[in-house]
Amino acid sequence: MTNTELDVIAIGNAIVDVVAQADDDFLIKHDLSKGTMTLIDAAMAEKLYDNMGPALEVSGGSAGNSAAGIASLGGKCAFIGKVRNDQLGDIFRHDIQAIGVNFDTPAATDGDPTARCLIFVTPDAQRTMQTYLGACTDLTPADIDPAVIQSGKVTYMEGYLFDPPEAKKAFFTAADYAHQADRLVSLSLSDPFCVDRYRDEFRDLVKGHIDILFANEEEIKSLYQVDHFDDALQHVRKDCKIAALTRGPSGAVIVSGEEVHVVGAAPVEKVVDTTGAGDLFAAGFLYGYTHGYSLADSARIGAASAAEAISHFGARPETPLKTILETFPQA
Amino acid sequence: MTNTELDVIAIGNAIVDVVAQADDDFLIKHDLSKGTMTLIDAAMAEKLYDNMGPALEVSGGSAGNSAAGIASLGGKCAFIGKVRNDQLGDIFRHDIQAIGVNFDTPAATDGDPTARCLIFVTPDAQRTMQTYLGACTDLTPADIDPAVIQSGKVTYMEGYLFDPPEAKKAFFTAADYAHQADRLVSLSLSDPFCVDRYRDEFRDLVKGHIDILFANEEEIKSLYQVDHFDDALQHVRKDCKIAALTRGPSGAVIVSGEEVHVVGAAPVEKVVDTTGAGDLFAAGFLYGYTHGYSLADSARIGAASAAEAISHFGARPETPLKTILETFPQA
Repeated sequence: MTNTELDVIAIGNAIVDVVAQADDDFLIKHDLSKGTMTLIDAAMAEKLYDNMGPALEVSGGSAGNSAAGIASLGGKCAFIGKVRNDQLGDIFRHDIQAIGVNFDTPAATDGDPTARCLIFVTPDAQRTMQTYLGACTDLTPADIDPAVIQSGKVTYMEGYLFDPPEAKKAFFTAADYAHQADRLVSLSLSDPFCVDRYRDEFRDLVKGHIDILFANEEEIKSLYQVDHFDDALQHVRKDCKIAALTRGPSGAVIVSGEEVHVVGAAPVEKVVDTTGAGDLFAAGFLYGYTHGYSLADSARIGAASAAEAISHFGARPETPLKTILETFPQA
Repeated sequence: MTNTELDVIAIGNAIVDVVAQADDDFLIKHDLSKGTMTLIDAAMAEKLYDNMGPALEVSGGSAGNSAAGIASLGGKCAFIGKVRNDQLGDIFRHDIQAIGVNFDTPAATDGDPTARCLIFVTPDAQRTMQTYLGACTDLTPADIDPAVIQSGKVTYMEGYLFDPPEAKKAFFTAADYAHQADRLVSLSLSDPFCVDRYRDEFRDLVKGHIDILFANEEEIKSLYQVDHFDDALQHVRKDCKIAALTRGPSGAVIVSGEEVHVVGAAPVEKVVDTTGAGDLFAAGFLYGYTHGYSLADSARIGAASAAEAISHFGARPETPLKTILETFPQA
């Protein structure tokens, strides 16, 4: 690992989560597909919010959650993403900085308000997400500072960045800067429907351009359009330097060339809300990997980080994740 | 009880809570008095927020929490309070309406932003509150509609209304309208320091003008400037038609003339955050009282409502309180 100031530069949509409980009938009535993320416009956001129960607001965004997790583990991390200069934007900035993440992307001073994600948590602890991207569409390549990218060991980006067209350009800009400086580029596939929307581009990326890929079972199957997890596994082994594939309560599989590790999920007393499970797995894995832990131990730190996130409402850690490291011998 | 459309009209400061964990050292460093509410200005709010950990935002306000609790129990309730037309104001309005409370007070279109209360929850589950009143100072007697007041059996007001001067006038206006129509007037003393600030006025009020008084042990001792709970109890019996005095884990004492009831606290598996305990006790008691339950059963419904509130972060109920009523025979 090269000598750098930061462990991870995370780039993603800067979103405030609006979390409420809902029953299955609510999802059916509003035609929402359980467990997935759907993009909505301002009018739909307003309509759904009007029908949503009492909610709590908490900073979110996939890569933002991962950045928070890395900082909570004690890692050094920066976040790049776009908010508006409004109350929700101030909340997002406060929360990510308060957990110890550098966040210097200037807020948009006009245009759409800060993004929000309406999250409906059903009694089975699944989350169904409806995202209004708002100010996220204002993230452009100009927000990517090569000096920042090159100060980090890994540039980690969420697949959701492909939704706002300018942010997609920023993604490629950042990947170029990172590779020019021999840094690693990491991608999370984010969501099976996100993979559907950008399958060809993601396949091209994964094949040769991504060093560390995160995906859950549905996403990796969608990427290769196969029915069985194992088929996807065999594909991705050939395409990608490291792939970390998560399988919910069945744990994770890490493949890197000839190396394969199968790691169990960490125990959780009660699963309350699965929002952020994948984000925090990525956080733990990237923390471990950038601190010299083995692939298997990195995955175990990821699993333990995810376990904390799903034991309460909201995706970001409520208790410092550093305590997880006590059970792992120093790398 | 007269025939009315609504059970309770709750009037209070319309506040969004900003909740974060903090340790005792944080309170000491920032000179915060544990377990109490302090008023702060915009500059102090900004300074404290800058130093606060990652937070979650959830609608609050003492009487607002009580209104939400009454609605969650199935009661009919309206709330009167002032927000600004900003994102936090929209959140406040959404949440209180979503739980089933009527809330028609127009938002201020200029002036200070929506009020927020920075709540620091220490590991002992105590909450220390720092409130920036913002738009609450714009609540005036003009916001009190006599028809609304007279449509409710009880007008319930928080003592915190005495802090913004115009809101205090609105308090007396509402009390007058209520009594003119033979409705009941209820007051929560809110906080021992709030009692300190307005002791003489509160004493005058309680003596003859308040039908149902809510206070915890510290507040009622502060009101009468006595060292022992029992001394305060003997005072308030003479002053007030009904006094519901809460004592945290020691339960509650209800006094009404010759009638005295001592009711235990409801069991809680783990106390997470005591924010809202008093507000939800008042909610349960007022629901019971306006639905013909005995004073003792009303207090038990209050205790069970408070128990739900303190078992999670945030003051408003996460699970519908209606289920509490299953264990109480219909009044």
